[in-house]
Parts: sequence; C-alpha cells; structure tokens
Amino acid sequence: MVHAPARPPAGAPPVRINLYSDTQTRPTPAMKEAMMRAEVGDEQHGDDPTVHALCDRMAALMGKEAAMFLPSGTMCNVVAILTHCQKGDEVIAHETAHILTSEGGTHAALTGAQITPLKGPRGMFTADQVRAAIRPRTRYAPPQRLLEVEQTANIGGGAVWPLEQLNAVAAVAHEQGWATHMDGARLMNACVAAGIAPKDMVASYDSVWLDFTKGLGAPLGAVLCGSSEFIGAAWRWKQRLGGSMRQAGLCAAGCLHALDHHVDRLAEDHANARALARGLAQIPGVVVEEPDTNLVFFDVRGAGTTVEELQRRLMLKGVAVSGLGGRVRACTHLDVTAPMIEEAVGHIREALAA
Amino acid sequence: MVHAPARPPAGAPPVRINLYSDTQTRPTPAMKEAMMRAEVGDEQHGDDPTVHALCDRMAALMGKEAAMFLPSGTMCNVVAILTHCQKGDEVIAHETAHILTSEGGTHAALTGAQITPLKGPRGMFTADQVRAAIRPRTRYAPPQRLLEVEQTANIGGGAVWPLEQLNAVAAVAHEQGWATHMDGARLMNACVAAGIAPKDMVASYDSVWLDFTKGLGAPLGAVLCGSSEFIGAAWRWKQRLGGSMRQAGLCAAGCLHALDHHVDRLAEDHANARALARGLAQIPGVVVEEPDTNLVFFDVRGAGTTVEELQRRLMLKGVAVSGLGGRVRACTHLDVTAPMIEEAVGHIREALAA
Amino acid sequence: MVHAPARPPAGAPPVRINLYSDTQTRPTPAMKEAMMRAEVGDEQHGDDPTVHALCDRMAALMGKEAAMFLPSGTMCNVVAILTHCQKGDEVIAHETAHILTSEGGTHAALTGAQITPLKGPRGMFTADQVRAAIRPRTRYAPPQRLLEVEQTANIGGGAVWPLEQLNAVAAVAHEQGWATHMDGARLMNACVAAGIAPKDMVASYDSVWLDFTKGLGAPLGAVLCGSSEFIGAAWRWKQRLGGSMRQAGLCAAGCLHALDHHVDRLAEDHANARALARGLAQIPGVVVEEPDTNLVFFDVRGAGTTVEELQRRLMLKGVAVSGLGGRVRACTHLDVTAPMIEEAVGHIREALAA
Amino acid sequence: MVHAPARPPAGAPPVRINLYSDTQTRPTPAMKEAMMRAEVGDEQHGDDPTVHALCDRMAALMGKEAAMFLPSGTMCNVVAILTHCQKGDEVIAHETAHILTSEGGTHAALTGAQITPLKGPRGMFTADQVRAAIRPRTRYAPPQRLLEVEQTANIGGGAVWPLEQLNAVAAVAHEQGWATHMDGARLMNACVAAGIAPKDMVASYDSVWLDFTKGLGAPLGAVLCGSSEFIGAAWRWKQRLGGSMRQAGLCAAGCLHALDHHVDRLAEDHANARALARGLAQIPGVVVEEPDTNLVFFDVRGAGTTVEELQRRLMLKGVAVSGLGGRVRACTHLDVTAPMIEEAVGHIREALAA
Repeated sequence: MVHAPARPPAGAPPVRINLYSDTQTRPTPAMKEAMMRAEVGDEQHGDDPTVHALCDRMAALMGKEAAMFLPSGTMCNVVAILTHCQKGDEVIAHETAHILTSEGGTHAALTGAQITPLKGPRGMFTADQVRAAIRPRTRYAPPQRLLEVEQTANIGGGAVWPLEQLNAVAAVAHEQGWATHMDGARLMNACVAAGIAPKDMVASYDSVWLDFTKGLGAPLGAVLCGSSEFIGAAWRWKQRLGGSMRQAGLCAAGCLHALDHHVDRLAEDHANARALARGLAQIPGVVVEEPDTNLVFFDVRGAGTTVEELQRRLMLKGVAVSGLGGRVRACTHLDVTAPMIEEAVGHIREALAA
Repeated sequence: MVHAPARPPAGAPPVRINLYSDTQTRPTPAMKEAMMRAEVGDEQHGDDPTVHALCDRMAALMGKEAAMFLPSGTMCNVVAILTHCQKGDEVIAHETAHILTSEGGTHAALTGAQITPLKGPRGMFTADQVRAAIRPRTRYAPPQRLLEVEQTANIGGGAVWPLEQLNAVAAVAHEQGWATHMDGARLMNACVAAGIAPKDMVASYDSVWLDFTKGLGAPLGAVLCGSSEFIGAAWRWKQRLGGSMRQAGLCAAGCLHALDHHVDRLAEDHANARALARGLAQIPGVVVEEPDTNLVFFDVRGAGTTVEELQRRLMLKGVAVSGLGGRVRACTHLDVTAPMIEEAVGHIREALAA
Repeated sequence: MVHAPARPPAGAPPVRINLYSDTQTRPTPAMKEAMMRAEVGDEQHGDDPTVHALCDRMAALMGKEAAMFLPSGTMCNVVAILTHCQKGDEVIAHETAHILTSEGGTHAALTGAQITPLKGPRGMFTADQVRAAIRPRTRYAPPQRLLEVEQTANIGGGAVWPLEQLNAVAAVAHEQGWATHMDGARLMNACVAAGIAPKDMVASYDSVWLDFTKGLGAPLGAVLCGSSEFIGAAWRWKQRLGGSMRQAGLCAAGCLHALDHHVDRLAEDHANARALARGLAQIPGVVVEEPDTNLVFFDVRGAGTTVEELQRRLMLKGVAVSGLGGRVRACTHLDVTAPMIEEAVGHIREALAA
Repeated sequence: MVHAPARPPAGAPPVRINLYSDTQTRPTPAMKEAMMRAEVGDEQHGDDPTVHALCDRMAALMGKEAAMFLPSGTMCNVVAILTHCQKGDEVIAHETAHILTSEGGTHAALTGAQITPLKGPRGMFTADQVRAAIRPRTRYAPPQRLLEVEQTANIGGGAVWPLEQLNAVAAVAHEQGWATHMDGARLMNACVAAGIAPKDMVASYDSVWLDFTKGLGAPLGAVLCGSSEFIGAAWRWKQRLGGSMRQAGLCAAGCLHALDHHVDRLAEDHANARALARGLAQIPGVVVEEPDTNLVFFDVRGAGTTVEELQRRLMLKGVAVSGLGGRVRACTHLDVTAPMIEEAVGHIREALAA
C-alpha cells in the first residue's frame, strides 16, 4: 500500500530513478524472450504446460504438495482466506498487515471474516501476544481460524521475521487448531537476506504465496502454495473470482525466468538499500531506519518538510519515492543501480535543503 | 458476554442470590398483569398498537424520529450495522465492545464489515484515538463508515462514558462523514447514574438502542431508534433476519411497564453495587473496581483462587456470580436486595477463606 | 407473503370478520393464562425450563433428536439455510416458495446461497423435476446442497403435498448427498387434513419447523427441529442473528398451550374453508380453487373487478381478505366461525354485484 | 461452460483439429510481436499506457464513457454485479446464462444477489417474460436491480439476440429502474454476424464486456465498459478481488492487436460453422441446430451414441469437441480452417458409424 500520490507535478521530467516501488519493474528483454517462447494451453482447464511447470517448481521450492497460479498477490490472499475460513471466523494478523490496511476490507466483504490486529514493532508480534489473543470457545466469541504473517513486513520497514519467531507464533496457532498463512509478497527478499531456503522459511505455514511482480521483475503473476487438499478447494474460489485465465503460460514463463535469473540478485537490491540508508543518515534532520531488505523508510519531519513536499521536489528532478504512514519509502529493485542510489542521495539532500 | 460456566456443581441448592446477570431478572406480577392486558395486532404488518405505543415513547425519550421493536439487543446491533454499512466497510469500536467480543463474528459474517478495535481504560477511547485511526481515502484502505460506543461499557466495568467524551468522539466521526451508533444495552443505568436525560445522552448518536431484558426486567425485547429514513431502511433487515413478529404487543407491554416502573429504581441497584464493592474491598486479597453502575468486577487471584473455583464454591451456597476476562463479575438488579448483598459478601469472604 | 394492502379505506368500520391471515389470530384468555403461569429462565443461556419443555415436545412430535425455539418462522428458514449451506451453494425449491418470494432475498444476502426455482402446479414439483435440475459436479456449476419444500404450500393454495411425493423428492436429494428442509409454517394443517402424524410426514426431512403464530394462535414463536449436530451448529447462527432471547418461556408456554388445545381444531378451519369455497363457487364470475386446508384462493376478474377493489368494498363492511399473485386469498382460523363464513359469502356476493 | 471431459483417452494422438472451444486459440506470432513491443507501466496505479489505450478504444467502440481491463470475462461479471447490486438484490437472467450455470454460484457467494432464471428458446427471453417477472415492491420480495443478457447466448447455441429484442427487454428493465448488463463474451461474433456496430448493439445496456480470449485469440484479458461513475465504483471491487495487475500492458497489446486483425475474420469462423452444420446434417441420426455464429450444437442420440463416446472416438483421430447439456458442441475459431472442417465431418461420420 502506497498512500501518497505519485502524480508528477507540472514540468516534471520523466522518472529516471524510480524508487517508488518494486512493483514498477519492467520485464527485461530476456524475460520477454522467454515469455514469447513459452508453450501455452488453456490454463483454466488445467492444460497449460508452462503454468504446470511453474506450479510444480514453486511447490517444490516451498516444500508444499501443490500450487496455483493467480493474476495477483492480493488474489492469493483473497483465495487463501476464502479457503481457510468460513463466514464469521476470525483471523489474527499484525495491525499493519496488507490484508488489513491495503485490500479495501475485502476479507470481511467476501469471506465474512473479521481480522483482529496485534501490535508490535516492525510489523511483527510474539507468541505471547498470540496466546493473549486467544478467545474462549463459546458461541459468543468469533471462532478463531487463521494466523497470518507477512514476510517481509512491508509497513514494518521490509523487516525479516526471524525464523524462530515465525515458528513460535505458528506453533501457538497450531496448538489451537488454527491454520497459518504467510503473505510472501517479498518472501524471496527475506530468504536471500536471511540465507534461509524458502522451504525452511515457510515450513510452519499451511499456505504461502510469492509475488513475481515485485523485486522478481515479472509483469504479472503470483503463486499460492499449500496442501493438495487446500489447493483443490482453492480452485473453486479461483474460478468464482474470475482468476482462471487462458493462455497464461506466456506470463508464467516470465515467472520461471525470474526464478532462474532474478532471485540471487536481490542481494544487490539489499546492498543498494543499505547504501541509501547510510547516505540518508548523513543528511541533517533525516531519521532513517536500518533496512533488512530492499525497503528504506525515513522520516523528514526533522528536516522541516513533509513527505508530499519532498515527493514533489524529487519529481522535478526525475526521482520517484513513495510515502507510507507519514514516512518516506524508497524501494530498490532491478531497475535501480548503485550509481542511481548515489545520485538519489544527492537529490534528496538538495531537495531537503531547498 | 459471560464466559465462565454457570452450571451448578452437583449438590448445589437452587440459586437464592443471583448476581450472575441482570439478564436473568424475571417479570414481576405487575409486569405480567400489564402484558396480559395489552391490546395486540400483527406487528409484522405494522398493526400492533402496543408496539406502536412503545416505539413512539422510545423515539420521544431518545429524541429520535422513529423506533423499531426487536426481539433482542444483539439483533439491534445486527440490524443497525447492516443498515449503516456496506460490504467491506470498517467500523471503529473499543476492543472490548460487545459487537466485537460477544456476537460471534456476526458483523463480518452478515454485513461484511470489519471492526477495528481501539484500546483504552474502562471500555472507552478518546477523540484523539479516533483521529489517529482515520485511514486515507484510497481504494486500498477499507472505507470507514461507523463509530460505535457502548454505554455503559460492560467489560469496561459498567463504566459510564462522560457526556463530553461521547460527544467528542462522535464529533470526529461526523467530521469524517461516518455515522455513529450507540449500543445502549444498559443505557438507562448510565442516564440514572449520571443524572442526564436519555435524549441528551444520545444526542450525538445517529442510532441507539435500549435493552429491556437487563436491569429493566422485561422478559424479551429491545428498541432501536434513529431517523425515519434509517428505521425505514432497517425494516428490510428486520424482515430478512426474521425479527418481525406477530402479536408482539404482549411483550412490548412489559417494556412499557418497565419504563414506568423500573427506571428510577436502577439507583437502588447502583447503591447495592457500591455496597457490594465496599464489602469486597475489605476481604484480604480481593481487588475490586469502584462501580459506576450495577456491575462489580473484582479480582480474586490475590486471595489465591480462580474465578471458576470461587463460582463453584458460591454455587454450593446458592449464590451465582459470573466470570469475564479473568475477573469475577457480580451484577445487581431488581431481584437483588440490600440484605442479599450483605449476605453475599459474607459468603464470598467464607468461600475465599476456604 | 401477502402483497395487497390491508389498510382500511376512510370510513371503514373495525374488522369483524378477519379472513386476512391466520397470522392475525389473537391469544385466547386460556392461552394467556398459561403464559402467565410459565416458569421462566434465561433462554439464551439454556436455562428456561418452559422453552426446554417445548423443544423436547417438538423434537418428539417431529421424530427428531433436537429442537430450537426462535422468534419467527422466517428466522427458522434463515438459521436452517445458514446451517445447511455454505457461500455459493444452491438450494432447490418451488418458484412460489416463501424463501424465494417472501423473505426479501435474505438467503443470498446472508448465506450467499442461490435458490433455483422449480415450476409445478399448487406449489409442488416432482422427483423427475428434481432429477432434471441436477447439475454436473464441476467447479463451474454451483454446488447443490439443499432441497426445500413448503408443507402446506401457501401460494400453492394451502395445498398438501402427498406423503409419497414428499418422500420421492427427498429421496432424489439424498441420493445426491443434499440435505432436505421443510418449511412447516402450516405443517399441522397438512397433518390434520391428511390424517398423518407429524413425525411420519417429516421423516424424510433433515430439518423442519413449525410456526405457532398461524392457525395455532400463539402470539410469537416457531420451533426448528433436526439432528443434535444440526441444532448444535444452528445455535451459533441463532446467537449471531440475535434470535437468542431471555425469559422466552413465557412465549413458549403459549406454544405448548397451542399444541394441547389448537391442533385438532384445525379441522374446523378446514371445514370452514370448504364451506367458503362452496359459497364462493356459486357467485357468478368467481373462479375458486378447492381448498386442501385453511386457505381459499379465488379469482374475481370474471366478475369484472380487481383484488384491490374487492378488498376496499369488503373493508367497508368490516371484512378483511388478502390478495396474492392476482388472486384473492381468504384464510380461516380460530377467530373465524361458521356463521362468519356464511356472512362473508353474502358480503362478497354483494360487493361483487356493486 | 463445457461440462464433458476433455481428457484424451490412452493412445490418442495430439489434437490436430481443435473444435473444443475458442478459448483454446493460441496467440499468433504477429500478436506476440505486438505484445513484446508494448509500452508498459503499473496498471494497478493507473500508469500503464497500453492498458489506457485499450480502455479508451473499447469505451469508444462500445459508446460508453469508460472502460476497465480485467484478467477474465468471469471477473467482468463478478465486478459488474458487485457494482450494480447490494446484498439481497435480485438479478433477472436466462436460465442458461453463464452467470447462473457456469460461475460456481459466485454472485450469491460474493454479492449476495439472487439470480432468478427466465426460460425461452435459444438462450433468449421476451419483454413480456420480463414484465411477468416483476415483483411487488414490498419488504417481502427481493428488490429487483439488474437485467442480464448474454450476447451471443452460448448454451443457446451461439444465438444472436435480435437488436429489437435486446432493446425491448432493456426497456422494461429501465422502466422499473433496474440496471442492464450484457455478458459480451462473444459480442463481436454477434456484431459481425448481424452486421451491427458494437455501440449500436449495446446502446441499451448500462454495462457490457468483451472477452479477448475467445474468437479474438488473445491469451488473457477482458474489458468491462460503462459510465464513468460505474467504472469508478468498479475499481474498488477490481482491487478487492485482486484483479489489479502490474505491467498488464503486455497483455493489453494482444487485445489491441486482436481488435485490429481478428474481428472481421470472425466471418470466416461463422462460414466454417455453417459448413460444419451442413456436413453434419447429412449424417444419419444427427440432429444439428443451424448456427448463428461460431458454435455448432448437435445431437447424436439418434445415431445411437453418447456425447462422451463420440468425444472419445474423435480424440483417437486427433479431433476435439465438447459436450454441453447432452449435446455435442463444436466451436470454430482462428486455429480452424475450412479443410479442417471438411476433414472433421468425415471423422465424425466415421466415428458415428463405428
């Protein structure tokens, strides 16, 4: 969720340094080449070989039995919650979770599920907090059914949940008979940053999805993974939502290319993010959070300006950043190079000095 | 919401001193007499004169244009939220609100609305907290539509919201274009305790309801009040939920009797509650909250026992109390007299000494 | 469902002969006496002995394991469909069924279930029609989950489904793994007319309810019956809808009284209905359907008038009838005597001659 | 909706003549070339120029103010009904409509809307039928809100609604204050067959969508058109469903290419369908419906076989057809040539003779 407006002011040049979001990466020529060569079929009828290849590969990568291709990460959350929960059930999540802040109330609207927020620094909560949120099992309390985490935690600053904490909160959920779901929009950033294999990172989670349109650079697509039974039930919701597609293998080929070529390089984005944070830390009045991954949040109120004003000034220099919860967010990705970072720091310094 | 079990242990005598809940009052002979004399008609077709009389009287009492008779207070909340909100909308309420903790997730299930909790002592929150919860108006954030308060706040200890605070939180809501709704399950307790007329107490609230089955002592019925347009729209939901009844005037007559005879006497319940609190405060290890109205919450962990164990021991003496959120709750009402309070303190002292 | 307006024209006397609906019966003095004597408790907490007595008796009468008291028949349908079905499921019913025509779209709204109508004379359909409506089990077709019948069929003319036909349509449903539900708003009329015991009449139905506010003459209440598991699950929805009440035993006592005193006498209502039909058949231009039970439908277009005009003229004579689907409906019940029938025929003859 | 299984039997060669569905067309090299050249941006943020170009072009073609790109035709229906209707509303449609038979009950599940079916030959109904379905406006009847038609009518045999009939049924809807919605999955087939411009064909419909993955041959995408206000409101649901994408311009470019190159050629598909029908008509025992467009339905029971058996035998010859409602469906499209039609007739003749 990126709240602040991205519309350039009059007279702004085209954006040259796009730190707005990793959702704005563009497919590389090699990725497009792979997409064009893809063998395709009717995905909705289960006949697209490239979609099958992607799902098989993702299931293996995540250590789950099965996987499903969907047009967006939000739809992965929608399908997962529709599949895990019934009307009136309760989901436990962080108060900054994408499902609560950035999906337009869809889970109450479509599933009829209540999301109860937990607080905690950097988009995370503890097993004790989960335990304290357990409700009595009476006909008065909403039935609790699902624990959700976001890895990395976007509004939490791109923070990486430590594996033990992921496992600890999931253990409480499982003791209670709840399911566990991971929003893995930027899961590969977490795995690369932590040096943990995806299947180990998600082992305690009954369902997990990965978005290919963020740092992985594909134009469209996300993959939801879980047990065969879960994915089987999820297919009915995919169909009902209109998430079944036709020759989707063309897009799936972009995702497969990303798995081959764009995972390891996320380390560069993280290095660029750290470099950006170091640069920003030296600007008077800027308070910057140390980034775990590719998101750099900083506060410019001490420099006497607002997020919106800084955005406007940077747009006039061809630099885009976003605003989120009163802070500036700068995001590194495959269209952002180390020299651009250096240049961006200079522009931000000047913009704040203006 | 009363979580702890009310089932008496083997060998327990009938309950003589019922501090379990004011929902357990029984209709007095005079009330039953009034019910029997009621002129009745087909309530569902708008033809019951006694229901009309009750609704007219309640609308006047609350200073609203119109009113609707319903079989329960929970249905007042369900109808009100179905009428105020659309699928995907967000409701702001206290984390201990009945709509969030004690209605089984019904508002997500039926309306498709997300309830976002605010924290705060004694079941209340401030205008600043409401302001801090305002979300940006984008297609990402759930649309915020309704602010809800509970007067008195049950889990908040039967606390009475000060009028200025009620008005202040409502003012923020109205600035934002949200509606305001008051769960007035025990509203008359608040009005009597604060010495404020109902219509002044609820003036900032677009909808409000009163339950007649609590301290007012009627066997069945609650009345929801609001604008004519609101109540007109609410009728469709009353019908859809099966809340339209037939010769309901018989029950409405009990409510009218309660308005005539059981409002002023709530002051006695409050005096009994204060006497109970004073008595409990002198028992070693008991921590008791000063009651605003007819609910007395106390903590017995310092006396080395649990809510459930105390309940069990008291049952053996013919005394019923309830448990709520780790505390004991004792509730005064028209079936509880001053001597019973004195006796109950003695039983609790003995039970804790056991 | 009674569509035509019941509002009396200016100058109309009070209604003396009320053939409008059996929902407008008023509790007799003996019934009120029984209600006043009822032992009561907190129904919502499962502590009302009179509600327990009614539920036990109804479960036995219907040959089911368990029963639940609710404030209306519509709520019985709402709770039953919420309990039997999930979002997206399909219900098969007659196109004139109350659940489809007269409950405001509540089953789509609250359960998210699609009701697919079958046609057929007198509110009934055949096993072959059910078989023809079976959908393939793919992810494209809505999952079929429930077959619903209405005994008697109101818009079908108060028609009584023959037992073999009830069993035959239920058998197809059960072969398919669907549940079966009977709307028994006027079930006792069917049982009395057919001379079949309730438990035999409903043996093929997984859930069934009886309304006490129609010919049985109680002011409020209906009872839903089914397996213990079904009723257990239904309790959550009763609570969520706000259908849990407090000292509801007072109303349940009226229902018990009706079971004791108002069942056998339904035969009188049926005799009165037949007498009315015979009288009407002799009025030129009137086409009347032979009644199975207590509802007499007749067409007055041949007499050169409309339902609304006839209603207006009869109101001026103190006689009320209703209109339903272009026909006049006259309903007999315990407030209608044989002499009133004779008088009503005379008034109708005059009104049509005017 | 294609019910019969498409799985080839053991030993079947690859499909050479694919009459299964026009959803199985594959993007041509020229279309893929256009996709690769597309200028892209972040579609979810309204920043994809190729998606904008497609939406602008579609709005102009359909004579509507605005348009929205979505990943599938089913999602166009889901978004449209969520936008037009509220919980509990009723939609009028043909009993064979895709929204009723082939979308898994999604409209009851997600919108809470009841779809009431009309009967009629070839997937069409008349203005008189719509008029007869009007319900009284009381709180008992579901509020009627939307009329839906499917142009061409798939299960109706690919039939083309005559323009006057489209306008006549829409006029009744508008008189009643209902909205009108057209499922235009194969709308261009209807326009080409009837020689009517799209904007004239859809002028009476408040919303309409076109699927690009059927005869138009694109791999993914559909466009929903309507007023600016409608599309504005629809965006919230697009977001909530997860139908917002990222660099979707790549797919939109395929759709633009289809508008330029694959519309006029639908006439060839229609000629092939007629040729197929003529050929089939000469096979003993085959009853074939005269096709309006690219769908040929035929009945092989007179030839002593079943749909499934014929499918199996044809698979062994490399020919795929589908089954739908007890009939065989053969579909022509851009991967099917005139010689293939001739060959297919021969294979079907042999298969039926076997």
